[in-house]
Amino acid sequence: MPLPLNNLGVVKRNIVRPDRDAVAKLEGFGSATVHEAMGRVGLMKPYMRPIYQGARLCGPAVTVLLHPGDNWMMHVVAEQIQPGDVVVGAVSAECSDGYFGDLLATSFRARGAKGLVIDAGVRDVRDLTAMQFPVWSRYISAKGTIKATLGAVNVAVVCAGALVNPGDVIVADDDGVVVVPVAIVAMVAEASAAREANEGEKRQKLAAGVLGLDMYNMRAALDKLGLRYID
Amino acid sequence: MPLPLNNLGVVKRNIVRPDRDAVAKLEGFGSATVHEAMGRVGLMKPYMRPIYQGARLCGPAVTVLLHPGDNWMMHVVAEQIQPGDVVVGAVSAECSDGYFGDLLATSFRARGAKGLVIDAGVRDVRDLTAMQFPVWSRYISAKGTIKATLGAVNVAVVCAGALVNPGDVIVADDDGVVVVPVAIVAMVAEASAAREANEGEKRQKLAAGVLGLDMYNMRAALDKLGLRYID
Amino acid sequence: MPLPLNNLGVVKRNIVRPDRDAVAKLEGFGSATVHEAMGRVGLMKPYMRPIYQGARLCGPAVTVLLHPGDNWMMHVVAEQIQPGDVVVGAVSAECSDGYFGDLLATSFRARGAKGLVIDAGVRDVRDLTAMQFPVWSRYISAKGTIKATLGAVNVAVVCAGALVNPGDVIVADDDGVVVVPVAIVAMVAEASAAREANEGEKRQKLAAGVLGLDMYNMRAALDKLGLRYID
Amino acid sequence: MPLPLNNLGVVKRNIVRPDRDAVAKLEGFGSATVHEAMGRVGLMKPYMRPIYQGARLCGPAVTVLLHPGDNWMMHVVAEQIQPGDVVVGAVSAECSDGYFGDLLATSFRARGAKGLVIDAGVRDVRDLTAMQFPVWSRYISAKGTIKATLGAVNVAVVCAGALVNPGDVIVADDDGVVVVPVAIVAMVAEASAAREANEGEKRQKLAAGVLGLDMYNMRAALDKLGLRYID
Amino acid sequence: MPLPLNNLGVVKRNIVRPDRDAVAKLEGFGSATVHEAMGRVGLMKPYMRPIYQGARLCGPAVTVLLHPGDNWMMHVVAEQIQPGDVVVGAVSAECSDGYFGDLLATSFRARGAKGLVIDAGVRDVRDLTAMQFPVWSRYISAKGTIKATLGAVNVAVVCAGALVNPGDVIVADDDGVVVVPVAIVAMVAEASAAREANEGEKRQKLAAGVLGLDMYNMRAALDKLGLRYID
Amino acid sequence: MPLPLNNLGVVKRNIVRPDRDAVAKLEGFGSATVHEAMGRVGLMKPYMRPIYQGARLCGPAVTVLLHPGDNWMMHVVAEQIQPGDVVVGAVSAECSDGYFGDLLATSFRARGAKGLVIDAGVRDVRDLTAMQFPVWSRYISAKGTIKATLGAVNVAVVCAGALVNPGDVIVADDDGVVVVPVAIVAMVAEASAAREANEGEKRQKLAAGVLGLDMYNMRAALDKLGLRYID
Repeated sequence: MPLPLNNLGVVKRNIVRPDRDAVAKLEGFGSATVHEAMGRVGLMKPYMRPIYQGARLCGPAVTVLLHPGDNWMMHVVAEQIQPGDVVVGAVSAECSDGYFGDLLATSFRARGAKGLVIDAGVRDVRDLTAMQFPVWSRYISAKGTIKATLGAVNVAVVCAGALVNPGDVIVADDDGVVVVPVAIVAMVAEASAAREANEGEKRQKLAAGVLGLDMYNMRAALDKLGLRYID
Repeated sequence: MPLPLNNLGVVKRNIVRPDRDAVAKLEGFGSATVHEAMGRVGLMKPYMRPIYQGARLCGPAVTVLLHPGDNWMMHVVAEQIQPGDVVVGAVSAECSDGYFGDLLATSFRARGAKGLVIDAGVRDVRDLTAMQFPVWSRYISAKGTIKATLGAVNVAVVCAGALVNPGDVIVADDDGVVVVPVAIVAMVAEASAAREANEGEKRQKLAAGVLGLDMYNMRAALDKLGLRYID
Repeated sequence: MPLPLNNLGVVKRNIVRPDRDAVAKLEGFGSATVHEAMGRVGLMKPYMRPIYQGARLCGPAVTVLLHPGDNWMMHVVAEQIQPGDVVVGAVSAECSDGYFGDLLATSFRARGAKGLVIDAGVRDVRDLTAMQFPVWSRYISAKGTIKATLGAVNVAVVCAGALVNPGDVIVADDDGVVVVPVAIVAMVAEASAAREANEGEKRQKLAAGVLGLDMYNMRAALDKLGLRYID
Repeated sequence: MPLPLNNLGVVKRNIVRPDRDAVAKLEGFGSATVHEAMGRVGLMKPYMRPIYQGARLCGPAVTVLLHPGDNWMMHVVAEQIQPGDVVVGAVSAECSDGYFGDLLATSFRARGAKGLVIDAGVRDVRDLTAMQFPVWSRYISAKGTIKATLGAVNVAVVCAGALVNPGDVIVADDDGVVVVPVAIVAMVAEASAAREANEGEKRQKLAAGVLGLDMYNMRAALDKLGLRYID
Repeated sequence: MPLPLNNLGVVKRNIVRPDRDAVAKLEGFGSATVHEAMGRVGLMKPYMRPIYQGARLCGPAVTVLLHPGDNWMMHVVAEQIQPGDVVVGAVSAECSDGYFGDLLATSFRARGAKGLVIDAGVRDVRDLTAMQFPVWSRYISAKGTIKATLGAVNVAVVCAGALVNPGDVIVADDDGVVVVPVAIVAMVAEASAAREANEGEKRQKLAAGVLGLDMYNMRAALDKLGLRYID
Repeated sequence: MPLPLNNLGVVKRNIVRPDRDAVAKLEGFGSATVHEAMGRVGLMKPYMRPIYQGARLCGPAVTVLLHPGDNWMMHVVAEQIQPGDVVVGAVSAECSDGYFGDLLATSFRARGAKGLVIDAGVRDVRDLTAMQFPVWSRYISAKGTIKATLGAVNVAVVCAGALVNPGDVIVADDDGVVVVPVAIVAMVAEASAAREANEGEKRQKLAAGVLGLDMYNMRAALDKLGLRYID
């Protein structure tokens, strides 16, 4: 059988999900902390915004590749959702159409989905907000879509500039959306905890008026580079 | 008398407004439902956003054509507002200036306007929010405008990519702004009602865990196109 | 000693701050009023948005020039903050990175800063909102920055299209960010008060149904330009 | 028979084309001249750019309404082209896909089309340039489209912010794309000729060093508004 | 040894390059043909534009991950170039700075590079054009960069929305940039040849006035969907 | 007499122009070289593009502040042009209108202007190209402007993100537009010459296959930061 030229038309049923405990450990951290803990990689583009303030989630990705103006595969991905999953939608070209609304949200929630991240548009945001179903999207648009073309489910996708493999953990909040590769979830959780432990003390010092210049010992380095104070 | 080359400098006083009952029937529906009911046409571009969450309105358009940096015609259109109307502002070139603030909102409301849709900027959004005067705009900007050039009132305009004839009904909410041609308002209201009636049952099934794949009988069609499930 | 080619690497410690009373007089006015009072100059581009609705501030600028992906000078500027100051950050090229989060906000607040205006990204917006630390920025992004390059503090900067000299007063709210040159703060406060005094009466008339066309005596001018009413 | 809710699925075969002589008279003028002659209305947004420098055309529009990612109706419109026509393509939502390439250009040219104006993407621009088939588009993209959805042919469309009725004359060059309503083509041609006749003399004076300030008698008006010359 | 959290600081020296013959077979095809042959995946976003018209290339990718405002790794990747390679540069956040100019181009060419594809800015475009060194970039900017941070060489990167693994073949021309995974280069070359063979005959028919409607037998399908011709 | 709140309505006749010899020395250098020589400040945003490839100029700025949709002050600035000057136009809010065409170019050239840099739109680009009158602009648009509002001439302006004082030297080419403060023109010319002298030798070495890694002695620093080579 010839190798297919691409993954279109494929639904992968079994994906490697991360250890539940590791996900649970990541859950408390914000996207900024996790992104730092990873070494500043894996962030989606900042145009991805939550549809309501305060939305946040953490869970493994099931991925779906869609085409402009066509949300058929959203129904296909619904069947692959397991409790705790986050659906990640990528589109083969930029499209502002509303791929997702309250009916699909009802279905996704019934399957146990924690939320949706989609590099396209969504609609029914009033209802989604009332449901407290968290969504990060590029656009909000009342425009619906057709159901005509095959995409793919649980293949690697590029969503908002970030590579997402099925099973990677999505951490999203008001600051944005970070993708944690499945293989390093536990490590990133630890590194995040280490960062945060560290921050409490710093916060206290800064609140007391200590300058970052002193707390981080920056003065010598700045001086060496030639920083000059003038009056 | 020679035919004028364009409508600049014209104020049309008598426009055909839709039947009040038909507007009332449309009033309950969201922009996404109405847009679907119309066959997915008539939506303004998704950059049109409400200045506060939860804003919504439904009413016939009185239109105004403006020029960059000049809001003079906003005062001219004010006189043409009848209770229940929605003012729709288009600009002859993109401009982020604040064409509308709390004084004009006071005037518009005194005339009975339900709200404003404008493909430009507005200001005083804190006051407008306090007044609960709903506005959809492309920009928010503190910058005011001059009063120097003639535009037009109640001519056909293109606003945010959609054609609006005076009297067309504007349906706007968090999902965007839809334009319903005056001739089909009653039909669209009916079609919207039909859609919505239909949705309650679907929502219930989906909430119970039925998949869209089954509810909409999609499996055969997907299979025929070659969708492959792999493990 | 040769004249340096630019101000990079310079921190100016003593800047001319405006009279406190003059700043206090400006404090009550919105950015739209102040911008009008100045003759419609000095507004930053409308892409500058508050991270939470209702944010507002008024205070003298301490400025900082940063480089893409590098927030080192944010620590240097912290030391130059005096109570009531507003930090204004410009970047030598567009960058969406998060230059500022809750730790720096803690430090800035400890120094007495009223808020931040930055032509780049910020993060930890949930925390900043909880702190009610007002920030106007172009982007929100979880991505942090490095500390490698010298910028400058308290030099003239261009921030979001507006020239800001240290000591200029920043007036910011939901409508945007205006820069008032230090030399004219008192005059602008007076002119703002005059405008606002004037507005109460106008608002009342408009609320009573008087048209702007009549209140501002616009009909003759419109007629002279050829405005035609048709039926 | 019930009135359809929209024009999707409709192909209008007989459209009112403008008088050939009137089109011929317009043919010599640039888009800037024609736009001025019309009173500064009817210009498409400036993001519409020719795929090669120096492209220009003038001819009646046959219109086509397309959907995101779907160019099926391009084949339907091809049959409606008459010699001298310009195809104008609008899309129901923004889409950068390449709707048009050298094969369709070959077909359009065989039907007598003068060129294409499309608010979307095109491809094969090297071939189109070699053919000297003029195209104005928003995007260039190698990505092709599907053939699944009905749009419409020869209905009124909004293309790049301008209303285009079938039969309206398109004037396009390096400065942009202007739409001249079919009813006023002859008048606009005359007005354009008048403008241009007028320009030769002005150009000569300006080349000789006469200032616009004097040639247009602007000094008194500027003085009255308060223009001050300082040293 | 602990698994690193990311690939920053890594230079992979040995990558799997595709068979030279397979690359040679791909070489003649345009990006649109190759993209279609792959099933419409693998295209970079259409904002990637060649710095001069007519630029084109085909060759295996060596990849480099950069940071905003920092081009240090461009010197590191230079050493990994083998004759015929194409350098593909991704940045960890959007940046318009000029990462590449005539000196680096001289160095890359000396190593045998065919060209550069970079999701950022470049400069010296006059010189690059004179050298006929093909570059596809998002921006052109005179602004240079610093050399302070480690990125990575020959790791998987996301460039302009497309995943690029080292060794994947880049096909770029006026229509855009396509990425062909190394494993399917030969298949894509064949599929491209098949497409093109097919096009000559079609072009001839269309040039003779045969309509796509007939050549592709579309009429029945359109009729079935309800396409109506009216007069 | 009260201090005016802003400079609107002011035309400054006498400005400090730089020494002609200093300008002449700068003339040979590209914008990238000059920008580096200044320490990477003073660059306009990269959206400023020449209307034809290969355009370049170097000369002192006469500045003009305009309003959206209003080019009246272009006629006022014309009178202030001296041979060799470059007109720099800023607008008080973003506007794509065509502020400048072939008539104004004829007038500017008659006064000795070398070219125009404007943060707005221009038109008649075919004619301007034929005249080889170099223009850098943000937009190209056939839409003209009105003449109704006072701006200012030869005041400090912010153009495309860069502060321009009258008399500052503008260096523009295919890579962008750089502003050299009048006080340091000679120094920048020297620093540019030093940079360029330095580049010839580097170019030769790189062409011979020497790596930047070795020529700039980067290996130790990269190693210290932890760069790892793997196979």
